[in-house]
Amino acid sequence: MAVPQRVQDLLTPALVLDLPQLRSNARLMADRFSQQGVQLRPHMKTHKTVEGGEIMTAGTRRCIVVSTLAEAFFYAENGFDDILYAYPLPFDKLDRCAELAQRLELFQVLVDSEAALAELKKHPLQGGRVWHTWLKLNCENGRAGIPHSDPAALQLAKAISQSESVELTGVYAHCGNSYHCSGGEEIKAVAQATTTATLQFMEKLKAAGIHGVKSSIGSTPSCSHPVPDMALLSEVHPGNYVFYDIQQTLIGSCKIEEVAVRVLTRVIGHYPATNQLLVDCGWTALSLDGMGRLPTGYAVIEGHPELKLLSMTQEHGKVEPVSGKLDYEKFPLGSLLSLIPYHACATAAMHPVYFVQSEGRIVDTWTPTRGW
Amino acid sequence: MAVPQRVQDLLTPALVLDLPQLRSNARLMADRFSQQGVQLRPHMKTHKTVEGGEIMTAGTRRCIVVSTLAEAFFYAENGFDDILYAYPLPFDKLDRCAELAQRLELFQVLVDSEAALAELKKHPLQGGRVWHTWLKLNCENGRAGIPHSDPAALQLAKAISQSESVELTGVYAHCGNSYHCSGGEEIKAVAQATTTATLQFMEKLKAAGIHGVKSSIGSTPSCSHPVPDMALLSEVHPGNYVFYDIQQTLIGSCKIEEVAVRVLTRVIGHYPATNQLLVDCGWTALSLDGMGRLPTGYAVIEGHPELKLLSMTQEHGKVEPVSGKLDYEKFPLGSLLSLIPYHACATAAMHPVYFVQSEGRIVDTWTPTRGW
Repeated sequence: MAVPQRVQDLLTPALVLDLPQLRSNARLMADRFSQQGVQLRPHMKTHKTVEGGEIMTAGTRRCIVVSTLAEAFFYAENGFDDILYAYPLPFDKLDRCAELAQRLELFQVLVDSEAALAELKKHPLQGGRVWHTWLKLNCENGRAGIPHSDPAALQLAKAISQSESVELTGVYAHCGNSYHCSGGEEIKAVAQATTTATLQFMEKLKAAGIHGVKSSIGSTPSCSHPVPDMALLSEVHPGNYVFYDIQQTLIGSCKIEEVAVRVLTRVIGHYPATNQLLVDCGWTALSLDGMGRLPTGYAVIEGHPELKLLSMTQEHGKVEPVSGKLDYEKFPLGSLLSLIPYHACATAAMHPVYFVQSEGRIVDTWTPTRGW
Repeated sequence: MAVPQRVQDLLTPALVLDLPQLRSNARLMADRFSQQGVQLRPHMKTHKTVEGGEIMTAGTRRCIVVSTLAEAFFYAENGFDDILYAYPLPFDKLDRCAELAQRLELFQVLVDSEAALAELKKHPLQGGRVWHTWLKLNCENGRAGIPHSDPAALQLAKAISQSESVELTGVYAHCGNSYHCSGGEEIKAVAQATTTATLQFMEKLKAAGIHGVKSSIGSTPSCSHPVPDMALLSEVHPGNYVFYDIQQTLIGSCKIEEVAVRVLTRVIGHYPATNQLLVDCGWTALSLDGMGRLPTGYAVIEGHPELKLLSMTQEHGKVEPVSGKLDYEKFPLGSLLSLIPYHACATAAMHPVYFVQSEGRIVDTWTPTRGW
C-alpha cells in the first residue's frame, strides 16, 4: 500500500519518528563524548533499524552494541562491523556467534562466568582468530554480571587473559539503576558510582599485570548527564537517547521537546455513558510499559494534558478526562491524537514499520528486525 | 536458518504451540456449539495465522472475526471469506474496507454510531452490493458499542435497516466483562446477562418490524461455560480458547493442562549474591501483561511451582525462588525452562514466528500477520 505524503493521512495506529529531532539527539550524544575523547558505541535495541544505526554511528556503520543475535546478523548483513553482542553468552547460540566472529572484522561477546569462558574455550575460532570478550561487571545494577567487588570478577578476568583462544577485550557495566533516578543530580551520582567502580576494577587489572583492556559503561540517563570521570573510560554505550521518551523526561535525561517518537491514533468511539473516548491504539501499538502509572495513564497525549489514556486492550484504548466532563465536540470520530510513549523501546518493539517525518511530511519508512 | 527437529534444540526464547492440544481446544469449542445449532465464528486475534484459522474453521476458511484490517486482508489473500471486521468502523480505512467488501463474497463491518452509518452511506458500494453491518451493542462490558438499553441503539438499528446501501446483518456483543470472573458460576452469570440483553434487543427489533438479523456474543470464558439460552443466538465469536493461558485458568475457562502455548527460555546467568537466575526471556518474548501479579510473577514456570518470574527488562528475565535459597545445581547455565504465559494474545503478539510441536517434535512453523 502506498505511503501517504502527510503525517495526518497515515492509517492509524502508526509509529512516527521526527527525523530532525532524532538526528539532533544522535548528534548531541556523539558530540558530547567526542569532545571527551570517549568512543560512543551506540546500542541498537531501541529501534533495530539500519537507518537508525546509520545515524547513530554518523555513517560509519562501525562500533555498535546489540542485545540479540538476530540484531547482530541483521547489522552484519547490512554492512555494519565492530559489533558487541552485549548479552550473557547464550550457550545455545555459540555456533552462530562463531559464524559472526569468523565473518566480521570484529564481533565481540560478553561473559560473566567461568562456565561461559569454558564454553568459549571448548569452541575455539579458526584461522588464528580469538574470541573477543568483554567481562560483564555488575556495578550495583543487579541484573547481570559479577559484582565488581567480588574477587570472582578479577579471577575471571585473569582466567580470560591467560587463555590462548579468548582475549579480554573490555570490561562492560550497565548502569540500569539510573532508571530509578529523578533529576540530573541523582543521575550523576549513579554515573559517578558506576564509573568509579569500573575504574577501580581497571586499576585492579593493571595491578594484576593485565593491560590494554577497554572499559565501557552506559545507559541513556548517565550518558545524558555524564560526570567528568567518564572521560577516563574507553567507551560508553547508551541507546534509548535517539528516541527518548516520557520515562526519560521523568528520570531527567531529556526535555519533552526532545522526544522524537509518537504513536498516532484516531478517535473511533464516543461513549458519553462512561464519559470516555475510544481510540484505535491498544497495547499492540503502545505496549503496557509504564503500567498506566502516569497522571495521564499509559502515555502523554500531546497538546491535551486534560486527557488520560486510562486503559488498553489488544486494539482499543480508553481515554477519559483527568477530571470533569469530556467535551466530545473537540474530538470528533476520526480525529487524530498523538501519544508520547512512556517507554520508546517497548513501543517501537510493537511496530513492523516506522514512519519517518520531517515537518509533517513522511520522508521515509524504516523496517526493524525482530526475533532472537 | 534450519528449524531443529526437537523442541529442546530450539534457540530461545521461542514461542511453542502444542498442536494436538490446540486441535483439541478448537474441536471442543466447535462441537459444543455445533450441537446447539449455533454458528461458531472464531476470532483470529490471538494467533493471526493461516494455519490457526484453518484449524479453528475446521478447514472451511469461512466465517471468522478479525480485529484489524491487516488481518482482514491477510485472511482474504489466503482464501478466507465471510470475514467480520469486528471493530468500530475506522473512518481512515473506509476505502480499504470498500476494497474488501467489493472483492469478497462477504465482508462485514461494525457500527455503533449514526456518524459511522453516515460514513458508510457516503461511500456506497458498487455493483448492487450493500455494506453488511453489525450493530455493536454494549452489554455491560463498557468498552465499545451503544448501551443495550439506550434508545439510541434501536434508533440506529432502524436507521440502518431503512438505508438502501447498508444492511443490518447482525447484532454483536462482546462479554469482555467475563474476564473479571472467577469460576464457572460467575462466568455463566455474565454469559446469561449478555445473552439476555442481546435477545431482548432482538425482540425489540422484531417488534419494530426488523427481521432476519443475526445475533452474536462472545468471549472465551462465556463460550467455555455457555448457558442454555446461548442456543437462541445465531453465532458466538470466541478466540483465545485455541491457545488458552494462565489468565483463562484463573477465570475458570479451562484447566492448566489445556493451555497449548509456551515460551521456551534458557538460563543465562547465576547470581547467588541476589539469590536469582537470569533467563533469556524479557518482555519482547512474553509481554508485560498480567503485570507480575501472579504468585509466580509474570508467568507460571512449568514443573517449577517453587520459582517466580520476578521481573523482566527488554531481553532479560529475573527468576527467584518463591521462598528460600535457590539451588543453582538444578538449573545449570543453558538449561531450559518452559513458561506458561499469563495472556496468550499478548505473548503471541511479540513473536515473528511460532514453533509448532507434537510430542516434542517440531512439525511446523507458523508466521502471523502484524500491523494494522
